Amino acid sequence: MKMVKVIGSITSTIKLDHLKGFKLLLVQSVDWKLNGRKEYFVAVDTVGLGEEEIGLMVTGSTARRTDATRDKNIDGTLVAKVERVDLE
Amino acid sequence: MKMVKVIGSITSTIKLDHLKGFKLLLVQSVDWKLNGRKEYFVAVDTVGLGEEEIGLMVTGSTARRTDATRDKNIDGTLVAKVERVDLE
Amino acid sequence: MKMVKVIGSITSTIKLDHLKGFKLLLVQSVDWKLNGRKEYFVAVDTVGLGEEEIGLMVTGSTARRTDATRDKNIDGTLVAKVERVDLE
Amino acid sequence: MKMVKVIGSITSTIKLDHLKGFKLLLVQSVDWKLNGRKEYFVAVDTVGLGEEEIGLMVTGSTARRTDATRDKNIDGTLVAKVERVDLE
Amino acid sequence: MKMVKVIGSITSTIKLDHLKGFKLLLVQSVDWKLNGRKEYFVAVDTVGLGEEEIGLMVTGSTARRTDATRDKNIDGTLVAKVERVDLE
Repeated sequence: MKMVKVIGSITSTIKLDHLKGFKLLLVQSVDWKLNGRKEYFVAVDTVGLGEEEIGLMVTGSTARRTDATRDKNIDGTLVAKVERVDLE
Repeated sequence: MKMVKVIGSITSTIKLDHLKGFKLLLVQSVDWKLNGRKEYFVAVDTVGLGEEEIGLMVTGSTARRTDATRDKNIDGTLVAKVERVDLE
Repeated sequence: MKMVKVIGSITSTIKLDHLKGFKLLLVQSVDWKLNGRKEYFVAVDTVGLGEEEIGLMVTGSTARRTDATRDKNIDGTLVAKVERVDLE
Repeated sequence: MKMVKVIGSITSTIKLDHLKGFKLLLVQSVDWKLNGRKEYFVAVDTVGLGEEEIGLMVTGSTARRTDATRDKNIDGTLVAKVERVDLE
Repeated sequence: MKMVKVIGSITSTIKLDHLKGFKLLLVQSVDWKLNGRKEYFVAVDTVGLGEEEIGLMVTGSTARRTDATRDKNIDGTLVAKVERVDLE
């Protein structure tokens, strides 16, 4: 999973039916210090992440393996909210 | 999904049958400010994107999960037009 | 497989059911000298890796092919502990 | 799809049976100006590309979705010849 | 396929059963001049590659499509030995 930060949201009215009803969030990869990296994705949210919150995103075929996204043409899904990172 | 900008189109007459009938667009990844990044793809369009417009592209096996592209040998499909990006 | 080092762990209480019961480790890619690279992932551990230990991570659909992770929405799984690297 | 340029060919006599009978081309990613980028792949050719010609390559599971490559262990297939790029 | 050079081997006694019996090689991506690039993988060998030899690696779901690796949790498999590269 990639650790990402929610940095915005996307409005799209012209889209395939598969995407209807999903909130589309703009997310940015973060490193272990939660600093943003230059990688951006648009992901479907299944756990209710808010602004600036950190989550875990699955990509590829795994993004279609949640109850909400099964067999839809979605390749980025937020599946967890990160509450704490413990470093060593 | 990747957020991309349409920067051109491709003409190809010698191609596998699977690709026939599709418009092949040259797209470029964009960051959260919609500035172009040095990543280029050729994608099939299913939502009617025009020049310089921003869209969402799915890649990999997800690109074959739209009604138009099912089971075809396509690994990049435009599935939404981005009308607005709201940042935080 | 990617060779990675365990650098931390993730706490997440709000997550999809598929992820429940798994230890979520923060890992960093390493090069052949085991120096960290600027690539970070969160992976499910199936072999009991400890802090600073080196392991092999499978990604994508392969991450769902272990007995523990089958058909779950997981796209990074640690499948081996690296005990020694012999260079040439 | 990735837009690539043919820059060479590979000779391999020791290989899995799945790869026998295919021409293996060394290709390089190109940007919108058709300038080479520092990304190299070896791909199976299904459309008869010649030296320095530009083509479209599919990767991952899509590379196994052509009639010639179905279910073979191939993850890069050239599926179209690019004859013209129209920029905006 | 990626063109890679064998630069070492991995010893792992704690690993999933799927990985048992395979030789795990540390490989590095190479460019068209066979110079090493800063990309490292651990791959299963199916063609008997030796030290410093060049091979072709398949990744992702394709890595599970050889007779030896079918349905195992392996995402990098060496499927050919490169004997010669002809540039143009």
